[in-house]
Amino acid sequence: MIGSAWGNHQNAGKSGIWPLILTFQVANQSAAGIRMEGQTLAKPVSVGIAGLGTVGTGVLKVIERNGEVLAKRAGRPLEIIAVSARSRSKDRGVDISHLQWEDDAVELARRPDIDVFVELIGGEDGPAKAAVAAAIESGKDVVTANKAMLAVHGQQLAEAIEKKGQALKFEAAVAGGIPVVKALSESLAANRINCLMGILNGTCNYILTRMESTGLSYEEIFREANELGYLEADPTLDVGGYDASHKLALLASIAFGSQVDIRNVEQEGIERISIEDIEQARDMGYRVKLLCVARQSEQGLEQRTQPCLVPANSPLGQIQNATNIVVIEGDASGPIYLRGAGAGEGPTASAVIGDIIDIARGNRTSTFGQPATSLKVTKPSPSQAPVPYYIRLLLKDRPGALAKIAGALGDAGVSINRMRQYGHDDLEAPVIIVTHGTTRRKLNRALSGICSTGVAIQDPVAIRIEEFHAH
Amino acid sequence: MIGSAWGNHQNAGKSGIWPLILTFQVANQSAAGIRMEGQTLAKPVSVGIAGLGTVGTGVLKVIERNGEVLAKRAGRPLEIIAVSARSRSKDRGVDISHLQWEDDAVELARRPDIDVFVELIGGEDGPAKAAVAAAIESGKDVVTANKAMLAVHGQQLAEAIEKKGQALKFEAAVAGGIPVVKALSESLAANRINCLMGILNGTCNYILTRMESTGLSYEEIFREANELGYLEADPTLDVGGYDASHKLALLASIAFGSQVDIRNVEQEGIERISIEDIEQARDMGYRVKLLCVARQSEQGLEQRTQPCLVPANSPLGQIQNATNIVVIEGDASGPIYLRGAGAGEGPTASAVIGDIIDIARGNRTSTFGQPATSLKVTKPSPSQAPVPYYIRLLLKDRPGALAKIAGALGDAGVSINRMRQYGHDDLEAPVIIVTHGTTRRKLNRALSGICSTGVAIQDPVAIRIEEFHAH
Repeated sequence: MIGSAWGNHQNAGKSGIWPLILTFQVANQSAAGIRMEGQTLAKPVSVGIAGLGTVGTGVLKVIERNGEVLAKRAGRPLEIIAVSARSRSKDRGVDISHLQWEDDAVELARRPDIDVFVELIGGEDGPAKAAVAAAIESGKDVVTANKAMLAVHGQQLAEAIEKKGQALKFEAAVAGGIPVVKALSESLAANRINCLMGILNGTCNYILTRMESTGLSYEEIFREANELGYLEADPTLDVGGYDASHKLALLASIAFGSQVDIRNVEQEGIERISIEDIEQARDMGYRVKLLCVARQSEQGLEQRTQPCLVPANSPLGQIQNATNIVVIEGDASGPIYLRGAGAGEGPTASAVIGDIIDIARGNRTSTFGQPATSLKVTKPSPSQAPVPYYIRLLLKDRPGALAKIAGALGDAGVSINRMRQYGHDDLEAPVIIVTHGTTRRKLNRALSGICSTGVAIQDPVAIRIEEFHAH
Repeated sequence: MIGSAWGNHQNAGKSGIWPLILTFQVANQSAAGIRMEGQTLAKPVSVGIAGLGTVGTGVLKVIERNGEVLAKRAGRPLEIIAVSARSRSKDRGVDISHLQWEDDAVELARRPDIDVFVELIGGEDGPAKAAVAAAIESGKDVVTANKAMLAVHGQQLAEAIEKKGQALKFEAAVAGGIPVVKALSESLAANRINCLMGILNGTCNYILTRMESTGLSYEEIFREANELGYLEADPTLDVGGYDASHKLALLASIAFGSQVDIRNVEQEGIERISIEDIEQARDMGYRVKLLCVARQSEQGLEQRTQPCLVPANSPLGQIQNATNIVVIEGDASGPIYLRGAGAGEGPTASAVIGDIIDIARGNRTSTFGQPATSLKVTKPSPSQAPVPYYIRLLLKDRPGALAKIAGALGDAGVSINRMRQYGHDDLEAPVIIVTHGTTRRKLNRALSGICSTGVAIQDPVAIRIEEFHAH
């Protein structure tokens, strides 16, 4: 009797055939794991979506458009049962009149007729977090595109949902439709990851690309992007590097088996990049990119988001506009490049639905690629390896100024590879220096040495050069 | 009693906890589906490997090297139990003395202590096929890198294994460590695929790259590649386009929900590509690549492997040496690019082990992304869209020769975009023509018209130009 109940109730959804007679018992069970063999009767997977902005609307459209083929692939129909959003009546270009409506996302998350709760509200805390917590408590699987929430609460949420035996999936939170979460946590699971690199914020890359192609200043292109609606309500999330860092921290957790740790990402945005930097970089065969890098060493985990110079003809240098790229270097696989649209209705919807299909198929890989309780707390480690730097200076145009700068660099143990003064008026001389490989510590010493000389009119701008050799 | 037996025997492996007392009952069961939660006791997944060439050896090495982290990720240890190969004593740089040995791969496939049978023997039929069939019959999961076998017998094998409720996985059969099979069948499952393109044979790409960088002839570089051991025992498999077509047919099946159909791939190798073609292409901003393309239209499924001219600065044009790339264009995701090493010990082992981990986790997506019985038989369709062509001619150097050629093209309705004669001696004039977009039918008519003029010294060489606009 006990064996029977256990067998039926816990595992009915995991046998090859769905026993009709048990349906009433398991209405509130996630029925994932059914394998379609020929004409097996398949229970639909019931989905509730909270948040009907661009992505949520995209999910509705794609499921409506491709429903039949999705059912074949998932082994069962995907059925959106209920939705929740700020406005019920807003015209979204897709009919939601046949769907159940909940004013409150938390209520939606608790509905007994939902198997999968899809959170597309956004925001680190607030209703998004509350609804996801409610969904977990109610035994649902959860799909989210919310990088901010996961970057802060990911560990806690993953532990909670894994305790329940359900899945928390977030392919859509990183790099839109590019399958990087699955590639890291499943396809490349055989590898120790040596290094992870990416261009993960489309808005920053768009701004940098436009600056190069138009020759306009950061401020002008920023204004343009804002008018086009490309920026978040708080633009600092994009241009300050926060969004990119959230994504990096999530990927680093999977890659290195460490607990998500957003506080230990070294972060610098693109606000200080001037059109001079972009043009000087171009003249030397580089492009400026907001690069995300994670690498583990014996010292700890290095995670950084910062503008870098990369060779213009490298796979990273060639990423233009809002495109994203991720490079994963596994010890067995070698470098794997994944590239595509990093945001937008279609690409992000593709990722959300891919996760729902995974759940419908019973594929419930742990949130960060291994049980959340087994993820380590990792010590942060700054970048140790010596790399070259680009330094832009504005000097007082007086005899001996350059010599003082060269002296400051030499005193700090930083040697110069190239130096050029690229035009000046009577008072100011702009100077570019490219150093040989040097550590961040020596560089910092050199920069404060430069400031002490009294010949620099403004603070020097230093940009790391990431020499990237493609395979 | 029946309920209990069913619950325990069939599903023991799918509950959260492995009941020790049942181990003897389920020794011959695939125990996938265990989810690790905290300190759950986990039964290892037992693996048998047939074939210890480069890839098999790589699998042994990587599992030995990364075993601990793999167990965390898979939720259970991966344990290689037994192997089979041609020679037991050969030095492979890895110790196999602790492993059980089988002389016969079929015996290995049937061993009751194996959960997952890994086939790395190769070859369309013979021992590879026999062993895989035996493994399926014995209820094992199967992982293979054998594109030739799957391109011919894939439908039958997938149907057989899905009937048994087990998985047949083949990430390693296409593009080495690049996770393209999983990307198509899982990550991008939300999408209708518009188009699939790739450079899938590293040897061909190596030869074409070396020809361009050295200026040497096809024959010379072919000899070099052969001496370096880059070519198969039967080099036609590579340079004739067979290997690439096998891979294309597998990907097309997943992308378009069609039964694998290798017979309907239009196929042309790189044997007729001369150094003139490569140099002329380069002068016009193109590179010659052996391109695989699959696209579905109302007319049917277009599948072709053929040398094409692609813009040198496009993502496809930039793939050099043995690197592979696949571009998948989904209706929601837009184009997704996957790039990496397409062969070799490490990359291919990474893919094989990724598949084993999938099985250990209980992720058993259907072989071709939907139940094999639901895959359609699709009518082949030649490429319909008009595209430009590059035509190389060797003409008798006599007055009016060019006029005759132009006439033959005009008569066939093919219009000329560019024409150049690139040097000649007294008897022969080499001529390059680039046409405007034209259909294959018109092109063929033009080519036979050219042959009829009597001024062509040798058969014209025509290469499709694939204008590729990157995103």
